[in-house]
Amino acid sequence: MSLLARRVLAEFVGTAFLVAAVLGSGIAAVRLSPGQAGLQLLENSLVTAGALVALILALQPVSAAFNPVVTVIERVLGSITTADAAALILAQFGGGFAGAVLANLMFDLTAVTLSGHHRSGSGLWLGELVATLGLLLVVFGTLRSGRTDRVAFAVGGYLLAAYWFTSSTSFANPAVTVSRMFSDTFAGIAPSSVPVFVLAQLAGGVLGYGLIRGLYPEVLA
Amino acid sequence: MSLLARRVLAEFVGTAFLVAAVLGSGIAAVRLSPGQAGLQLLENSLVTAGALVALILALQPVSAAFNPVVTVIERVLGSITTADAAALILAQFGGGFAGAVLANLMFDLTAVTLSGHHRSGSGLWLGELVATLGLLLVVFGTLRSGRTDRVAFAVGGYLLAAYWFTSSTSFANPAVTVSRMFSDTFAGIAPSSVPVFVLAQLAGGVLGYGLIRGLYPEVLA
Amino acid sequence: MSLLARRVLAEFVGTAFLVAAVLGSGIAAVRLSPGQAGLQLLENSLVTAGALVALILALQPVSAAFNPVVTVIERVLGSITTADAAALILAQFGGGFAGAVLANLMFDLTAVTLSGHHRSGSGLWLGELVATLGLLLVVFGTLRSGRTDRVAFAVGGYLLAAYWFTSSTSFANPAVTVSRMFSDTFAGIAPSSVPVFVLAQLAGGVLGYGLIRGLYPEVLA
Amino acid sequence: MSLLARRVLAEFVGTAFLVAAVLGSGIAAVRLSPGQAGLQLLENSLVTAGALVALILALQPVSAAFNPVVTVIERVLGSITTADAAALILAQFGGGFAGAVLANLMFDLTAVTLSGHHRSGSGLWLGELVATLGLLLVVFGTLRSGRTDRVAFAVGGYLLAAYWFTSSTSFANPAVTVSRMFSDTFAGIAPSSVPVFVLAQLAGGVLGYGLIRGLYPEVLA
Repeated sequence: MSLLARRVLAEFVGTAFLVAAVLGSGIAAVRLSPGQAGLQLLENSLVTAGALVALILALQPVSAAFNPVVTVIERVLGSITTADAAALILAQFGGGFAGAVLANLMFDLTAVTLSGHHRSGSGLWLGELVATLGLLLVVFGTLRSGRTDRVAFAVGGYLLAAYWFTSSTSFANPAVTVSRMFSDTFAGIAPSSVPVFVLAQLAGGVLGYGLIRGLYPEVLA
Repeated sequence: MSLLARRVLAEFVGTAFLVAAVLGSGIAAVRLSPGQAGLQLLENSLVTAGALVALILALQPVSAAFNPVVTVIERVLGSITTADAAALILAQFGGGFAGAVLANLMFDLTAVTLSGHHRSGSGLWLGELVATLGLLLVVFGTLRSGRTDRVAFAVGGYLLAAYWFTSSTSFANPAVTVSRMFSDTFAGIAPSSVPVFVLAQLAGGVLGYGLIRGLYPEVLA
Repeated sequence: MSLLARRVLAEFVGTAFLVAAVLGSGIAAVRLSPGQAGLQLLENSLVTAGALVALILALQPVSAAFNPVVTVIERVLGSITTADAAALILAQFGGGFAGAVLANLMFDLTAVTLSGHHRSGSGLWLGELVATLGLLLVVFGTLRSGRTDRVAFAVGGYLLAAYWFTSSTSFANPAVTVSRMFSDTFAGIAPSSVPVFVLAQLAGGVLGYGLIRGLYPEVLA
Repeated sequence: MSLLARRVLAEFVGTAFLVAAVLGSGIAAVRLSPGQAGLQLLENSLVTAGALVALILALQPVSAAFNPVVTVIERVLGSITTADAAALILAQFGGGFAGAVLANLMFDLTAVTLSGHHRSGSGLWLGELVATLGLLLVVFGTLRSGRTDRVAFAVGGYLLAAYWFTSSTSFANPAVTVSRMFSDTFAGIAPSSVPVFVLAQLAGGVLGYGLIRGLYPEVLA
């Protein structure tokens, strides 16, 4: 396989596992801890952190963004071409969808159901903006300070926290947000709530890009 | 001791502690958090992750697969001989059995009891396939990308997550699966449920091998 | 931007995210786990640890004290100038206030409310002294032993623990303490309780400085 | 200060914080999560792990055994002198006692009370033997395989797990065991239960020494 094909495969597989982890653990949490919303989110957030540590460590030397906002900023910063970015982003959406189907099937649910979980309000949208801004700060701050091998821990720690401190539970990722439409379970999101979530993430992306350029005008060794 | 003897000892001791951790923490979780299935699995999954981080860091330079599927793939990839693989796998099964006995005795239970915990259904079997596929992706992705010293964290993070997001709670290991027959407690599995679990793990192993070859055709420095 | 401007920005942004994480997760914890004080603190402490790991890894090569006591000791140890220390401390207080406002707004609360959460008593004050002493031991012990790249994990692990083992839940930071006045929620503190908390932190800072000088008279390579 | 004085100080301070973390978090856990034994142990075990990661990272280049069994084995392996080992062990007992007093005072309890928490039975004693054997395997396996900088994570992960999978909740340390007599709270131990616990730990120490010599006859680079 060409390097690009391997990168596409890595983004597909990684995003699939990430979405399966988010949705699958949400399903398990509701079944095993009924009525305990806090415990459910604790379970869901620890699982997401654990999955991210593992997937980034395993796939990073090939490709481990799993997130179109991250890939777009890599393009803007000049580390990948436009064509490659487009291919990776497609793989992220495709992988995310596959992960949603996989989660549903593992828990004996219909392969695809649309979520009825409405998520809207200015607090949540501010939450998504802050969540995405923070994620970019963490990813590119760690990368540009020459700590590539610790991105996995930084991202895992950040999302464990951001699930709680942003009111929106920190989707912070358009591919994961769209994929979470396809499971009518704990971590799902109603299709009608998706567009504003994604807009807020893109706004966070723009602010995040400016912050990174201010903090790290150059990549350190 | 010869290097092979030391490797056999490491696989025996490591798998024994791993199985004791899985089963022992399951027993403690049920006793201390009765009726709270979610909290029990949270306790069980955090313990498994902590034990794996510790055991892999301590034993890896000798041998730290603790899993016949991993050892078989090491053989297929050419890093060990057939005779060595066979010895290590025997040690994994022996150590796992010893760990089950140890867990039972520490909690004042009969040394060996057969589990009556039936686990079957297409969702669970798909779960085991996905769990094993993901484990191999994480182990060999981290290894082949030259990050040997971070396998412990990748595997710990992965299993913390996979206990939750695969419906089967991610056994993902034939030696651990067989050993878990010998304790009629939280983390046990009825003997009649074992064969299909192991078959699903082997299927995940085959797919995982293909995925690794695609992502990492060569070992990076 | 000049290096000092970048450092000021890093302290502002980092302290803002830290305070948002502490306060925001406290709000979420109370809403999602009502009546379960232990579970709330578990959620709050894990989030604080995760946020600290991420923020220190991302910002450390620029500036990642987020704490006036730490910055003062860096000044005393001679690694920064008085003018720089003053600017960084101002940024910490400003960022902390911004983080409190952000947390309130994300959870649809009034931007600023004064906390009515009174925290006083000799046990708590001793707790703050011990908490700050321990924090300095951990930060400067790790730094001066040449393990700069592991400060993030040391500080994260320490605060996860110190939230529990110090009776005061370990504020250990004057900028964070003052910022927590501005949210009448779980992690808030009444303005009248702030002065003695800060005094106890400064006392812990003096003792911590002496301990560090004793243990690490020189910086190791 | 001489190097030995600094090492004695490090063992005193480190063991004090370790015991304060174990006892203090136990007190907080019972107060905040009344009647929930599992959640209490989860809180207690996560805190112990976090504290160990922080303390070992901060103190290791000076001295960070915090455990007489570990120090004795370092003496037997020839890395320290008998006189130094004696001084360090005294510091561990002294520090542990100071930590118990500190925990009691921070939580507004009498400075010293004797625990009435009886812990005995063959299952628990086997648990202590296994807990200490495993701790030595983890500490010296990681050290002798040339991974000194990851001992903190290995020990933290191990004790998080061992609190649960050994029936005794893994004291695994004579200095900590004796210190836990002096607080009549969650993590305390009745004086009459101490001798057999310590004997079981010493037995685990002997077995652990043999295991280490078998696995790692020489220290790797």
